Amino acid sequence: MPILNKDMSLYISLSGRPSNIGTRFHNYLYDELGLNFIYKAFSTEDLPGAIAGVRALGIRGCSVSMPFKEEVMELVDEIEPSAAAIDSVNTIVNHDGRLVASNTDFEAIAALIDRHGLNARSSVLVRGSGGMAKAVVAAFREAGFSDVTVLARNAHAGKALADKYGYRHASADPVPGHQILVNVTPLGMDGENAETLSFTAEHIASAQSIFDVVAFPSETPLIRNARDAGKQVITGAEVIALQAAAQFEKYTGHPLTEEQVMRASEFSRQ
Amino acid sequence: MPILNKDMSLYISLSGRPSNIGTRFHNYLYDELGLNFIYKAFSTEDLPGAIAGVRALGIRGCSVSMPFKEEVMELVDEIEPSAAAIDSVNTIVNHDGRLVASNTDFEAIAALIDRHGLNARSSVLVRGSGGMAKAVVAAFREAGFSDVTVLARNAHAGKALADKYGYRHASADPVPGHQILVNVTPLGMDGENAETLSFTAEHIASAQSIFDVVAFPSETPLIRNARDAGKQVITGAEVIALQAAAQFEKYTGHPLTEEQVMRASEFSRQ
Repeated sequence: MPILNKDMSLYISLSGRPSNIGTRFHNYLYDELGLNFIYKAFSTEDLPGAIAGVRALGIRGCSVSMPFKEEVMELVDEIEPSAAAIDSVNTIVNHDGRLVASNTDFEAIAALIDRHGLNARSSVLVRGSGGMAKAVVAAFREAGFSDVTVLARNAHAGKALADKYGYRHASADPVPGHQILVNVTPLGMDGENAETLSFTAEHIASAQSIFDVVAFPSETPLIRNARDAGKQVITGAEVIALQAAAQFEKYTGHPLTEEQVMRASEFSRQ
Repeated sequence: MPILNKDMSLYISLSGRPSNIGTRFHNYLYDELGLNFIYKAFSTEDLPGAIAGVRALGIRGCSVSMPFKEEVMELVDEIEPSAAAIDSVNTIVNHDGRLVASNTDFEAIAALIDRHGLNARSSVLVRGSGGMAKAVVAAFREAGFSDVTVLARNAHAGKALADKYGYRHASADPVPGHQILVNVTPLGMDGENAETLSFTAEHIASAQSIFDVVAFPSETPLIRNARDAGKQVITGAEVIALQAAAQFEKYTGHPLTEEQVMRASEFSRQ
């Protein structure tokens, strides 16, 4: 690390339970790129006070995580379409005192739908109803998909999410046959659900493209099964890399190569 | 420097025109002592917002410089006697959300009067009328000195300062004969006044102890003349080392050796 100095630009994150990942990811790249920046995670029990501090101290950027992604919207000066689309902010850039909010999760999902050439005439089954599921569903809506079903054990949340974007919902497994499957639940994530397959073998067999938002690990049972069956796959590693690169570029103006994102991600998880 | 991580405690400074000295001083010692802390200077145009940020982000300590030393008093929860004595704060410690303000300049001057055994029956001539002169005059008052004259070209400020502590003031050189001379003006400091002697040769000749608050350099014309004349000297280097050590200990709980302070001071000025 460089010797700290008064001129360093400070970037922070605000979340209920900070992890070390953002701090390590951003500082690793600041160091590699020779940027006179530092990044540090914070928690707070006073979000308006924290945002007042961002303004008053000239903190240059602020990543936002649970449980502040919605509440923070009324504290900023401008909300970009990516955040407005899902009523959720994960990135604030301080442009000389003007706080501009966006959502790079939404941007990343939208970019991956485009990059992998998913066809808007395909039928889509999205499993999940949390904040990230909202980003996924909104991104499919923005990309012009009309045949989307939201599958959620929580029928209330699933219906609300589907209704918001004009889609169907299901609270139990629908008949297989969807061309695109998207998992936005913790199933397959490290921990107690690590070995759980988030869609049935029949759903996987009849799909063409499988998208799993789980990033740790990105080789979930769903992704492994889909690869074995020769399906097109989109992994959570792509989501997290793309959203992190988008956030980094908003903060610093520096685009990142995929290789830089991979190295920093690897470092950040050690 | 260590790899930055989410658990680092952040300490900051607030001033109108930050220098790099505090940032380098504190981080040097954090590194040497293996403390998981970082320190960075900030400026602000919104002091209440900045202090709200200190609270909301759990910033653990905040050094305060011009022009915020007085205005900040109404934003903290407790004012220690060292700050109350001179209506001026240079150190805020965040004790689990309770902001406690003190003034380590005052503490350092008081400690040096005691450490060098200055006799309270001596007559004292203090030159200067700014914030640091206030700390000096108040410390002599607290130490029980009754015969103190405040010499200031700015008659209004000099009279106000002298009156506040029940001392005499003079707007032109008084007759020599004071036993203790204290310079609290920029005379002798690096820059256009570097070669200016802050007291006359006659004043120096008739004094016993010479105290110069100027720290950059600490070997001012006044100190050199006093040394040559075999007088007791107290330098600005002692003031700055003592106040920095006091501030460091308030922030971290770690007392510093003189040698540590000297090394960190030297590093901080590079």
